[in-house]
Amino acid sequence: MSASAKPVIVLVRPQLGQNIGKAARAMLNFGLTEMRLVAPRDGWPNPDAGPSASGADAVLEQAQVFATVQDAVADCSFVYASTVRRRDLVMPVIGPQEMGSQIARSSARSAILFGPERSGLETEDVALSTAIVTVPINPEFGSLNLAQAVILLAYEWSKLSELAQPPAKELEAPAPHREMDGLIAQLDEELVAKGYFHPPSRTQATRNTIRTIFTKTGWSSREVKAVRGIIRALVGPPRNRDGV
Amino acid sequence: MSASAKPVIVLVRPQLGQNIGKAARAMLNFGLTEMRLVAPRDGWPNPDAGPSASGADAVLEQAQVFATVQDAVADCSFVYASTVRRRDLVMPVIGPQEMGSQIARSSARSAILFGPERSGLETEDVALSTAIVTVPINPEFGSLNLAQAVILLAYEWSKLSELAQPPAKELEAPAPHREMDGLIAQLDEELVAKGYFHPPSRTQATRNTIRTIFTKTGWSSREVKAVRGIIRALVGPPRNRDGV
Repeated sequence: MSASAKPVIVLVRPQLGQNIGKAARAMLNFGLTEMRLVAPRDGWPNPDAGPSASGADAVLEQAQVFATVQDAVADCSFVYASTVRRRDLVMPVIGPQEMGSQIARSSARSAILFGPERSGLETEDVALSTAIVTVPINPEFGSLNLAQAVILLAYEWSKLSELAQPPAKELEAPAPHREMDGLIAQLDEELVAKGYFHPPSRTQATRNTIRTIFTKTGWSSREVKAVRGIIRALVGPPRNRDGV
Repeated sequence: MSASAKPVIVLVRPQLGQNIGKAARAMLNFGLTEMRLVAPRDGWPNPDAGPSASGADAVLEQAQVFATVQDAVADCSFVYASTVRRRDLVMPVIGPQEMGSQIARSSARSAILFGPERSGLETEDVALSTAIVTVPINPEFGSLNLAQAVILLAYEWSKLSELAQPPAKELEAPAPHREMDGLIAQLDEELVAKGYFHPPSRTQATRNTIRTIFTKTGWSSREVKAVRGIIRALVGPPRNRDGV
């Protein structure tokens, strides 16, 4: 994925330096590095930002400052406004996943706007945008803070980027069938020796149950071997290791 | 969606009250309400938690405290350990989306474990789990804090929860964790009696392996009972059914 496809994170009139730092950390966790600040309340640089960035200092150092939102998104083809739905504007409202996929599909530059901590984006800021992006949250509680909003949208973007190679489901494949068969045969032999199968009319049904129970485990070759060792230990005589 | 399908959030040995509060807020944003605390460092209740919860006080008030992880997940059939991949354990590793979909598909109770802020989950905690859930983050930076990890996993769950149809007749849900614990305790006792654990320096690692092998089976209550009967038969004297 080319660098230009990574969305730019635009913090519009952010208030606390601490929150700018947290947003930088959230970005870098998902591989985003380009932060733009529009008219930060306390100027820039802000000494409170660094300590909250937990090592994402490079993001802060490269942050660019703009006087207006318009300037900040001048080179961006798509602009997403992170906010709740607005009654005052008629424009598309999408979820984080749809935003992530739109950004990933395009090679053009995108920006995501986040408003000031207390008041959120103004109508004028939202009106500049291609779409509103809203994280669906608990309507009875619902209070995402700035860093939380940034991390959720950065995360959704990252899922479609190369970062998000799904982890291998299993570190070890299930054992070949014959190995599980060997385990079941061993167990069966021991159970016969113990007189476990009774009455005879139920023996086949019990054997089927045992087969299902062990087949569904998905045990690897290593695990099948371990369980075979456990069965041997259970039926064998106690070993006095201390004495030897 | 029935209440029992919402995952329980388990904070294992959390350190700062502030972070417990932030986790509560993250949960409630996505409709999660059941928090469990395992041995919180500074006791409970913690006066620092409330101010960080930003109104999610009800989550904190209802939080339950447990002495051990085992107790905290005793009634849960699926346990997800939020951590990076572990070299010391062989178990499934899934992403947040897969976790969300597994939880949404099942009517059985699930828990998600989060470790202490600094050190993360111990191997023993992870060994109790059904799977590791890992958020794919920037490998060159990568430092999700506790509240961030909670919000991302709660968010992924919430995306599927609205869509979650009542699960179509599940085959059989995995047994609650306490039943699997019972099986493992029984097996452990018999193996100790047989002198299986040797040398002593390897005992804990072997116990972790055994726990993982059996936890991953997904056995139902009925199957756990059957295997416990098999263990009893293997260690018991042969029964001569013909003679009686």
